[in-house]
Amino acid sequence: MAKIAAVKGTRDFYPEQMAVRNWIMEGWRQAGLRNGYVEYDGPIFEHLRLFTEKSGEEIADQLFFFTDRGGRALALRPEITPTLARMVNEQINSLARPIKWFSVPRLFRAEKPQRGRLREFFQWNVDVIGSEDILADAECIYTAIDYLRSVGLSSKDVVVKISSRKVLAALLKDLGFAEDGLEEVYVLLDKRPKLPREAFDEMAAEQIKDQALRNRLKEMLQRLQPEASEDSLSKLKVLAPEAVQADIVSFSDLFYYLELMGVADYCEFDINIVRGLAYYTGPVYEIYDRREPLRAVCGGGRYDDLLAGLGGQEVPATGFGMGDVVLELMLKERGLLGGAAQGLDFFVIDAGRELFSFSREDKDRCVLAVVSRLREKGFSAAFDYKRQPLGKQLKQAAAQKARWAVILGDETIKEGKVNVKNMAQGGQRTVGLEEFLSRPGETVK
Amino acid sequence: MAKIAAVKGTRDFYPEQMAVRNWIMEGWRQAGLRNGYVEYDGPIFEHLRLFTEKSGEEIADQLFFFTDRGGRALALRPEITPTLARMVNEQINSLARPIKWFSVPRLFRAEKPQRGRLREFFQWNVDVIGSEDILADAECIYTAIDYLRSVGLSSKDVVVKISSRKVLAALLKDLGFAEDGLEEVYVLLDKRPKLPREAFDEMAAEQIKDQALRNRLKEMLQRLQPEASEDSLSKLKVLAPEAVQADIVSFSDLFYYLELMGVADYCEFDINIVRGLAYYTGPVYEIYDRREPLRAVCGGGRYDDLLAGLGGQEVPATGFGMGDVVLELMLKERGLLGGAAQGLDFFVIDAGRELFSFSREDKDRCVLAVVSRLREKGFSAAFDYKRQPLGKQLKQAAAQKARWAVILGDETIKEGKVNVKNMAQGGQRTVGLEEFLSRPGETVK
Repeated sequence: MAKIAAVKGTRDFYPEQMAVRNWIMEGWRQAGLRNGYVEYDGPIFEHLRLFTEKSGEEIADQLFFFTDRGGRALALRPEITPTLARMVNEQINSLARPIKWFSVPRLFRAEKPQRGRLREFFQWNVDVIGSEDILADAECIYTAIDYLRSVGLSSKDVVVKISSRKVLAALLKDLGFAEDGLEEVYVLLDKRPKLPREAFDEMAAEQIKDQALRNRLKEMLQRLQPEASEDSLSKLKVLAPEAVQADIVSFSDLFYYLELMGVADYCEFDINIVRGLAYYTGPVYEIYDRREPLRAVCGGGRYDDLLAGLGGQEVPATGFGMGDVVLELMLKERGLLGGAAQGLDFFVIDAGRELFSFSREDKDRCVLAVVSRLREKGFSAAFDYKRQPLGKQLKQAAAQKARWAVILGDETIKEGKVNVKNMAQGGQRTVGLEEFLSRPGETVK
Repeated sequence: MAKIAAVKGTRDFYPEQMAVRNWIMEGWRQAGLRNGYVEYDGPIFEHLRLFTEKSGEEIADQLFFFTDRGGRALALRPEITPTLARMVNEQINSLARPIKWFSVPRLFRAEKPQRGRLREFFQWNVDVIGSEDILADAECIYTAIDYLRSVGLSSKDVVVKISSRKVLAALLKDLGFAEDGLEEVYVLLDKRPKLPREAFDEMAAEQIKDQALRNRLKEMLQRLQPEASEDSLSKLKVLAPEAVQADIVSFSDLFYYLELMGVADYCEFDINIVRGLAYYTGPVYEIYDRREPLRAVCGGGRYDDLLAGLGGQEVPATGFGMGDVVLELMLKERGLLGGAAQGLDFFVIDAGRELFSFSREDKDRCVLAVVSRLREKGFSAAFDYKRQPLGKQLKQAAAQKARWAVILGDETIKEGKVNVKNMAQGGQRTVGLEEFLSRPGETVK
């Protein structure tokens, strides 16, 4: 039969790619723990309704869904926040607050695969549930920066663009938008940076029928457009009408906390950040590659209504997601990608004639016994199935990046001795087999 | 709206369960690396055909399948072996052999959830591709035992029951079964241990119409039935007809290698082991809980035809899978389950009046700055969002299992000093803030 290919938009993780994936995931985990979060995870699929209920159209359009044998409508998770909300709702009375949790879920979106966007990907999710304090938002943003900094991305490489749906809502209402029309405007604004100007104008004209209102919106956006040389948060304070000032004061605290945490140089206010998901209620942010203004590696914000919206109590919440695909691209371009494969500790080589037979009389001195005892002590060890000449076995040891080759030969049988060869430096010494096996780590120091 | 529940047969991993899952996965990973395998992974879903083609009916009946927007038939992976075969086929000419790979995939089966069987689970998969030597089978079995032993399961807890499809095929053909009728018999035999005697007889009568043949099969199975007090491999040698002896010799090597590797006490020959999957061709084995004879934690075997069957070259292969659900049950029952949550390194407490304001003049000495600097140095650190009285903050520190509490107070501002309290032993010392921050690990030694 013909070969069956992988599904488009998915990835095969050969050992080399797997090592990179593990390196990214481990970095995320360490940053999560370092910042005082604990890890959780949920199922890969949930009842379809969990995702269609509160996340908004963009997500619903991108779901992989199916029915089980009982006819239940299920979907592969496109994000983990609804699962997080469901899990926290389930145990809200027994969980100590604030609930600081992180996860590194595998997620799925049925969109057209393109550079930086796949149908299957990983995302680091970091959330604080149970605190309405903007300190929690600051700590989430700090955590994202802490990770990016730990892998070598400075404030010259990435920028956290921060806005506030609360401030934006106040501004929009001040312009004359109705409360129940805001979500439509958010969706429109979220698409703005990705659209050519004409396409945006057309879409805006279609969604905002009132021309005067539309013009006021455009004018406001233009006035608040961030420019490199100035402090756009101060500009917001100056330009914003009185009705919005109270929300701006609280929003300013966020920047102040980030300054105290020592990461102000990574952060800036940007009115254009809205986020596509329907459930955000407060600060929202996206982290961009400074070299590619449309490339976001991370996005998040406050979603105080989601838990109640999914049948729980009113519990404030905030958090972000950082995807692996764009992150890997960014790190690779900058030569910052880690995850080089680890080699073996020992490769055990059979250079004696007798040993090839694995004879029972010498069973404690044969390759299989020596390899097994090394593994039992926690060292990684391998050997050659083919039992080839010494030179070929040494090549195998090198190919598997073994740090030490342990050479068994006739003198192993006769005198109980082995040769231990340092594969990197080339030195070699003869040592008693039992002495070596009782403390392999000491012997090769 | 009403709460939406998790899908039946899936698991929520709250932090406590997640720690256990991570402990199991990390143990698997370490055992894989220790035995000279490297890690890989594939996508969660594949083209449906990849699974229906060669795995046999049992798997095909348990698939979660769906179509994507292009109308392609996809399925969630119920096992990773077909993906492994696909990936290796793809790069067969550039991969050095033997290919020793492991993976810890998340898998899915649309079966009725019950104790020890869920619809979503993890499985450690360990495979050697490119060696027809039975040493490779021995090393896979050793690797499974190496892990089980490392978590405290002795040969009194678990037993590896080993048989050979090659030997069984020779025995069956000697009884009079046709080559193309063997697979049906395998499926039947695989179900035998799980069925009441009458049900099995009924099923046998249905599938093997020839009564004489059926009786010969039953008689053979009875004669080879393993009994505690004897060496059933020797019994096989004595009882088996001449035509089967050659296959038995090679099969015996497997037990010899396992003896040399020091794990003979875990292993025994058992004619009842067949395995449900269609693609096995040589040695097959399952690892059972000795306390519960029907509870298997691991299964595997040789599948020399699968890669060619999926469009690749003829390449021999062997390996096993070990599931997390039964493993966790077994470990829990024996009190061997690890994965206790790690606590924080530092909890930074704010005991000073001035510090509550996070005032800009003292910004390098405030809680946020101290926490951030600890994290920057790689230590895990947290603080209290609510900025409560000292006693309450100390309780938070204890609740988060912090090893050290770092207490900032008025003297931190005035004299640049902090108190560092050992949370376990209760001791406390005063130290300069800068001295502490420059080497936090040393200070608390």
